[in-house]
Amino acid sequence: MPEEEETEAEKMFLSVHSHPMPSAFALEEFEFPLRIHIKEMPLFPKWHLPLKLMAVFLSVAFVYTFLRDVLQPYVSEGKNDFYKIPILVLNKVLPWTSITLLALVYLPGGLAALLQLHRGTKYSSFPVWLENWMGVRKQLGLLAFFLACLHAIYSLSYPMRRSYRYKILNWAYQQVQQKKENSWVEDDVWRMEIYISLGILGLGLLALVAISSLPSVMTTLNWREFQCVQRTLGHTAMFLCTAHALVYGWKKWVELKQFVWYTPPSFILASFLPGVVLLLKAVLAMPCFNKRLERIRHGWERPGQKRLIDKDSI
Amino acid sequence: MPEEEETEAEKMFLSVHSHPMPSAFALEEFEFPLRIHIKEMPLFPKWHLPLKLMAVFLSVAFVYTFLRDVLQPYVSEGKNDFYKIPILVLNKVLPWTSITLLALVYLPGGLAALLQLHRGTKYSSFPVWLENWMGVRKQLGLLAFFLACLHAIYSLSYPMRRSYRYKILNWAYQQVQQKKENSWVEDDVWRMEIYISLGILGLGLLALVAISSLPSVMTTLNWREFQCVQRTLGHTAMFLCTAHALVYGWKKWVELKQFVWYTPPSFILASFLPGVVLLLKAVLAMPCFNKRLERIRHGWERPGQKRLIDKDSI
Amino acid sequence: MPEEEETEAEKMFLSVHSHPMPSAFALEEFEFPLRIHIKEMPLFPKWHLPLKLMAVFLSVAFVYTFLRDVLQPYVSEGKNDFYKIPILVLNKVLPWTSITLLALVYLPGGLAALLQLHRGTKYSSFPVWLENWMGVRKQLGLLAFFLACLHAIYSLSYPMRRSYRYKILNWAYQQVQQKKENSWVEDDVWRMEIYISLGILGLGLLALVAISSLPSVMTTLNWREFQCVQRTLGHTAMFLCTAHALVYGWKKWVELKQFVWYTPPSFILASFLPGVVLLLKAVLAMPCFNKRLERIRHGWERPGQKRLIDKDSI
Repeated sequence: MPEEEETEAEKMFLSVHSHPMPSAFALEEFEFPLRIHIKEMPLFPKWHLPLKLMAVFLSVAFVYTFLRDVLQPYVSEGKNDFYKIPILVLNKVLPWTSITLLALVYLPGGLAALLQLHRGTKYSSFPVWLENWMGVRKQLGLLAFFLACLHAIYSLSYPMRRSYRYKILNWAYQQVQQKKENSWVEDDVWRMEIYISLGILGLGLLALVAISSLPSVMTTLNWREFQCVQRTLGHTAMFLCTAHALVYGWKKWVELKQFVWYTPPSFILASFLPGVVLLLKAVLAMPCFNKRLERIRHGWERPGQKRLIDKDSI
Repeated sequence: MPEEEETEAEKMFLSVHSHPMPSAFALEEFEFPLRIHIKEMPLFPKWHLPLKLMAVFLSVAFVYTFLRDVLQPYVSEGKNDFYKIPILVLNKVLPWTSITLLALVYLPGGLAALLQLHRGTKYSSFPVWLENWMGVRKQLGLLAFFLACLHAIYSLSYPMRRSYRYKILNWAYQQVQQKKENSWVEDDVWRMEIYISLGILGLGLLALVAISSLPSVMTTLNWREFQCVQRTLGHTAMFLCTAHALVYGWKKWVELKQFVWYTPPSFILASFLPGVVLLLKAVLAMPCFNKRLERIRHGWERPGQKRLIDKDSI
Repeated sequence: MPEEEETEAEKMFLSVHSHPMPSAFALEEFEFPLRIHIKEMPLFPKWHLPLKLMAVFLSVAFVYTFLRDVLQPYVSEGKNDFYKIPILVLNKVLPWTSITLLALVYLPGGLAALLQLHRGTKYSSFPVWLENWMGVRKQLGLLAFFLACLHAIYSLSYPMRRSYRYKILNWAYQQVQQKKENSWVEDDVWRMEIYISLGILGLGLLALVAISSLPSVMTTLNWREFQCVQRTLGHTAMFLCTAHALVYGWKKWVELKQFVWYTPPSFILASFLPGVVLLLKAVLAMPCFNKRLERIRHGWERPGQKRLIDKDSI
């Protein structure tokens, strides 16, 4: 019996190349046949670079936010805000990393277009780093979406926290003490209504892009449909998310007290890269560049273009 | 090299008919082979009608809600409630459209059953408009689910908004001024606990139906399982969502002040169509109709039925 | 025409064995060919046991929570807390059942390892009940994830409820009456920030595990990747969720008033089983056991092992 089982397992493994997973769930290592060296299988090779990038961005953003939001008040005012670390600091780190990764999804396409415009031909291959980068856009985008979802849940959890409740109660107490009948700040209300709405719409569009990346959904789309979802929806989502970050910032650009320890607020840093990508996209969509790019992509070459790079590569 | 690449790409395209998308992500137009005319590919043909319907419902609901919730207070009381547009108005528009689309998913099945009962035979084809309608039920349902998700996130974001915080603070101030020890309104509490709970359960069931519509999940279900999920769960979800809308309304049916400018509150309009669909479903499930329907579906024909329609269609 | 249609439908059905669902959505029974007896098809056979288990746990947890949180205050203090049923009681029942199901996903793997250590060989089959249990781990896990999602939405909806608003207003009133300038409780704040954060991270990891269970995603993973997601991520998620439950409990372990009617608070009961599973996992990961287990899994047998069980089974 056990012998037979093993052969069965091996058969299963042989079929793994076409259908990587056997139908039975075999979670434990002992359910796996002997002769197959599980440790030699690749482990998410396409995810290494994106995950490392994510880890770096998360760390840098965490240190930056911790210094500004927790350490600075402690050092300069003796204010103990360490309770902010598990949610408030984390929830600045998550959207920052998310929008940066999202920008990195759409940056290489712009760079490639610039390169083609500069070279005046499409018959030359891209540098290796750009090709590699373009090959992990899907992974970068999915990580960005994952972090965006976490960001949404963290944000929605704000008012259920004890800290928020105590703050509300203390504010109410102060309002009564100050005999202030109305604490409504129109400006503040508008800012928050708009940026929450933009954020939710951006997340909704990102969800559609992410769903279209599921293998089984992708195979039901033709090229044009896939482009439409990934490019049009994706760029719109990035536009909404950048607008979300900027409206979140509102007038903090010019408020000096926001620049603690001479550092800019994180939303300025976070919206810089997506801003550049969207600008590049807008410039490339201008008729003068767009027409030339289209001609190049239909095979036209700038006269005198000598295909030097091609010769080298042959 | 480039020549070779192109042939490779063409091969990829030829295989597109079986597997529409090549495995490599080719987001940019320049990554696409020359000779394929991307603009001739169809662009989501089955989604055109559902998306247009959604756009129409969203617009009508938006205008209606804007007039009632924002313009009316401004005109008659001079109250500036324009801050409600980005979230509060939108979040009435979203569930209204969502539940309407959901009702449109289950209406054609009822109509078809009525038609069969009337004709007394199943051997006659349905009118073209009904067939087309039945062909886009999946798309209608997915749009309804998407809008329902957005509605959920918008609703959950209510208490984190500045406007909510300021209102709470002002209410607290007033309570202190009025020396009212307890502002608890049992009726209001029950209403909200119930409709939130119903809404979440409805959304949960809709999520299961939506997941079962994923191509790869659908292929693992047999017909009976698929029917069970799409019909039983779907109808239950629609029942919960309609109940959610009605409990949200509670006693507003009879409160005259809710009928601003002689228009009914939106929840009455929103729950009308799903109510009709559920009623039709209930009527058809009654033994007298259900038995006859079952016989018809097993091939029985009313005596004297002359298959006129068939002859016409042949 | 109708005849032809039927043949078409039958062809479709014949192809069902390879692709269970026809491409056209045929929700209504009358769209289904005559001769196929839909009622003879199996209806989610692998889901029966997990669903029954879920129903039992939900019922027991509901009764327990209802008695402690609603009936006890009513009986002993005459306090009417029945409004808690639709959300607050339900939202204790959901996470309790969810984490129990999650523990049941990872318990059989540990039991199997114990059995192998005890028998000193891998060449003997597991008892039938263990094999059956191992065969429904995926279903148990997906149900656990579904309930965890509902739990998250229910929790996020807390502050938008009327009951929460009225409580806040009453607390604010009391704070003013007591002239208490600051109601901040550092301990309480930390507890809640941490357990919310742990819960969100746990849910995020569970979502990744659930996505990797989608058929089309699963087929793109090799064995090692699948193991990595399902075991490493899964155990980490369970660890986070257990920590979430324990931090939620905080010091209630020792507070006598928590033990109403001599019953322990539900978080203690809820975290017992996952605690055992994690402990078992930790013990098995200790070098002395782990090494022996690895040797057994590579075919080593304890001397004197006579394969009695095998002979029996042959």
